[in-house]
Amino acid sequence: MTGMDETAPVTAALLIIGDEILSGRTQDKNLAYLAAWLNEAGIDMAEARVVPDVEAVVVEAVRALRGRYTYVFTTGGIGPTHDDITAECLAKAFEVPLQVHPEAHARLLAHYGEADFTPARQRMARVPEGAVLIDNPVSIAPGFQIGNVFVMAGVPKIMQAMLEGLRARLKGGVTVLSKAVTIRAPESAIAGDLGEIQAAHTGVSIGSYPFFRDATGQSGAQIVVRSRDAAALEAACAAVIAYCRRENLPFEEN
Amino acid sequence: MTGMDETAPVTAALLIIGDEILSGRTQDKNLAYLAAWLNEAGIDMAEARVVPDVEAVVVEAVRALRGRYTYVFTTGGIGPTHDDITAECLAKAFEVPLQVHPEAHARLLAHYGEADFTPARQRMARVPEGAVLIDNPVSIAPGFQIGNVFVMAGVPKIMQAMLEGLRARLKGGVTVLSKAVTIRAPESAIAGDLGEIQAAHTGVSIGSYPFFRDATGQSGAQIVVRSRDAAALEAACAAVIAYCRRENLPFEEN
Repeated sequence: MTGMDETAPVTAALLIIGDEILSGRTQDKNLAYLAAWLNEAGIDMAEARVVPDVEAVVVEAVRALRGRYTYVFTTGGIGPTHDDITAECLAKAFEVPLQVHPEAHARLLAHYGEADFTPARQRMARVPEGAVLIDNPVSIAPGFQIGNVFVMAGVPKIMQAMLEGLRARLKGGVTVLSKAVTIRAPESAIAGDLGEIQAAHTGVSIGSYPFFRDATGQSGAQIVVRSRDAAALEAACAAVIAYCRRENLPFEEN
Repeated sequence: MTGMDETAPVTAALLIIGDEILSGRTQDKNLAYLAAWLNEAGIDMAEARVVPDVEAVVVEAVRALRGRYTYVFTTGGIGPTHDDITAECLAKAFEVPLQVHPEAHARLLAHYGEADFTPARQRMARVPEGAVLIDNPVSIAPGFQIGNVFVMAGVPKIMQAMLEGLRARLKGGVTVLSKAVTIRAPESAIAGDLGEIQAAHTGVSIGSYPFFRDATGQSGAQIVVRSRDAAALEAACAAVIAYCRRENLPFEEN
């Protein structure tokens, strides 16, 4: 991303906690969803990390990220099993005790009933001191917010439902607008000129994302133009399209 | 991951370089593929980071990761366009000059021909001093290795082809074996006992990965047992299965 207007950007990082992502067994789907959701809210996803279920590693990552970005989101590790250690890690990262949250306890107790509210299930009522709950309309067990860190479930449906409840808590910036032009020619055919178009358009970020034999069997590149300024966006897109026409490169706007 | 035998593990990190992943526009597919591939080679994927096309951020991430893990893999940013800055970043991270690699230059020249070997395409022949090429059987433009860092393309088909050429260069450890038991009951129904099973089986890592209404409309959890020791793996799996039978929890081995 070069040339984009960086006026007071609101930034975020995602910390994905889970051995299953690092072993390749589970394909993460939360990063792409959260990034697109935040983008609409005018918040830039600036970094993501995937770490294993190892306390020292999670604690260090939370500390590194929370000082660097406006918001940090975490996914994973808030269930009832022994490998769910996110609440403990957040308490350590913020140097506060982990304690039972009365409202979380009440919700879980009402859901499971006295007889089935096992010690493992009771673990899900613990949050770091000072944390505010994040509602879970799907499966009850809440996430929580502490400082600028939002701790959410790893299961995509639950994470997405939690996120909807956070809209009012997040301050957004100016939404980044984007347009794409797909060129059905080798990326290298336009590379030099694209650099010139980028240089001529300030406040705009132009990215080129090549693809190799897509569903249509063709190769090419998607040129993505992004800006917080609609007029600047249109001008840069028009320059890309004018170039394609001049050089007779097949293209589509999308 | 708790309780796994950590005897001289060979570790790796993946650095995903690209605004398109952080904007949510492109779904990364390289992490899951590389993690599974490395696992078979006896190499543990220990961390992954996604960073934007910003030089200072990429350089810092390379430096942080290369000192911490046996191998670092990067994907993205080695094409011909202005936003492809990975080679420059690696040169900075290793404090060596960026220079034209004669063999890379020769391959690209043969591919494009004298007339079409534009300055943008010539950029793809530059590698940090001391780097060794990584072959690209798909689209010619090579990746490169410098120190313990392997710089690969972001397009999955090209990344995967480059990876095949690296087998002989990577020293693997003992492969981590894994087995999964899918339980069609709430994760919290087994959580306490699973912790006890984990505590009783050293050299084994037991993870629990809940799912919410899968294709069959059911919820449940996948219990994944991992170990470098086949006998320990079988014993822990047998304990999980015995528990499911005792409690009449529906399950499948997969």
